[in-house]
Amino acid sequence: MIPLGRVAVVGAGQVGTMIGATLVRQRRTAGVSSVSLYDADPEVAQAALERGAGDLVLADPRGALEADLVILAVPVTEIIGWVREFGPFMAPGRALLDTGSAKAEVVAAMAHAIPGGVHAVGGHPMAGNEGYGPGAAEPDALRGAVFAITPCRADEEALRIAIDLASACGARPLVIDAVRHDRLVARTSHLPHLLASALAVVAAEVEPDTALTGALAGSGYEGSSRLAASDSRMVAAFASANRGQLESALGEFRAALVRLEAALGEEPPALELELSRGRRARALVLER
Amino acid sequence: MIPLGRVAVVGAGQVGTMIGATLVRQRRTAGVSSVSLYDADPEVAQAALERGAGDLVLADPRGALEADLVILAVPVTEIIGWVREFGPFMAPGRALLDTGSAKAEVVAAMAHAIPGGVHAVGGHPMAGNEGYGPGAAEPDALRGAVFAITPCRADEEALRIAIDLASACGARPLVIDAVRHDRLVARTSHLPHLLASALAVVAAEVEPDTALTGALAGSGYEGSSRLAASDSRMVAAFASANRGQLESALGEFRAALVRLEAALGEEPPALELELSRGRRARALVLER
Repeated sequence: MIPLGRVAVVGAGQVGTMIGATLVRQRRTAGVSSVSLYDADPEVAQAALERGAGDLVLADPRGALEADLVILAVPVTEIIGWVREFGPFMAPGRALLDTGSAKAEVVAAMAHAIPGGVHAVGGHPMAGNEGYGPGAAEPDALRGAVFAITPCRADEEALRIAIDLASACGARPLVIDAVRHDRLVARTSHLPHLLASALAVVAAEVEPDTALTGALAGSGYEGSSRLAASDSRMVAAFASANRGQLESALGEFRAALVRLEAALGEEPPALELELSRGRRARALVLER
Repeated sequence: MIPLGRVAVVGAGQVGTMIGATLVRQRRTAGVSSVSLYDADPEVAQAALERGAGDLVLADPRGALEADLVILAVPVTEIIGWVREFGPFMAPGRALLDTGSAKAEVVAAMAHAIPGGVHAVGGHPMAGNEGYGPGAAEPDALRGAVFAITPCRADEEALRIAIDLASACGARPLVIDAVRHDRLVARTSHLPHLLASALAVVAAEVEPDTALTGALAGSGYEGSSRLAASDSRMVAAFASANRGQLESALGEFRAALVRLEAALGEEPPALELELSRGRRARALVLER
């Protein structure tokens, strides 16, 4: 295992806090000498520090350039912004990993802006919930979760650092091409975020007395709409970064919905047949 | 409180088992003298009996006509079938309640087929999960849940029996017009079932290696697609019975999705604005 050394976490929200806190706890096994935190909002960085997500707070984003490993845990648009603005100043031998949920644009920006001697690699820990900020970070959320790792260029050491980091967090590293990652995650995550949001709007507008609608909204609605409660800025950033795939996914979704609606117009057995297709499809994807 | 007397539960799946088991436990407070179970599949009825959902199994659906209160806990299509086939033979003074999640068609069938002296009323316990059969019945699921009660005609005693039953289950009775119920539930439950099913199909078809898709499907996908795992026959029945409202809901949903997709085509702040609308909408409905 490569010692991670001085780690800087940029972005002290749910994901940054989760990773920072895990590294502080796994300090020895991961060879972490210090964890510094930066957030554009100093109060957020302070709150993360108080939750044990780091040893110190950086006042200036440039401070992260002193670290051996920089972990970017901000919305995808800002990840790309950081890579372009600060990436060129990273010193050879240092490492850079991000945690965004759209990867092709990020690794393209890395390949372009990060000097060749820097070990840059994309990452996507598949953990977290719809909450945001340090308070939403569950300490053990990474344990057993998949940690997708998307290479940005041929760099075995970058891969090894990312795999070690994921393992130190108790997560399951999965190396996958960024474009393939984005195609799948558009369907398993980005599309569901848009569906939840649209559903929430429809349910809120059906009746002026939303308390009555709420009384008739059971656990099914709660689960189906949960992603609508996510940080809108974060979702807008990854959705926009993965726009092409997300538009394709929306097209496929509309086609699937048209089939269901056509079956709804027939006798119940036709709809039952379509629905059982969905049931088998879900079981197929989630059988682990 | 009106003693419920001899209760017959028709349909020993998740809902029938849940209600039967609660009535057996609340026997004294609810004035229940016996709970009999009928299911078209005798093994299902037997399994429910073994889970404490009743005192005896009925071999013939006609046996339910001997009860003081008949509770129909089968898919909506079969509820309507029972009402039409056996309803006319109910004796005056007896009571009839169903548990289907689409109500306008059910109360219309009741008003037409059930003799005037019988206390008929629609019911919809807003509890349960995506599982089915007696094994999926959680004993305390009804506690604190809303139990919608939809009158079928002016009959105070029918209402009182339904309210007493809901209260005996620890649920919160909510008397609401059947058409209004169906309009709201189309958006909070029936639409989400179709969305989950379509999403499941899209996610399963993106990649031949569904295990890889599964690895990149986190808790967001699991929650968003959960309703797709429901009993397809049950869902097809209530969706078909509420087809008009569900088609309207689908139209509204498509319009909301078009707004999101248009915003996706712009810069991230436009999409963020749309998504934050969804976030507020969800909070509005779920603030309790």
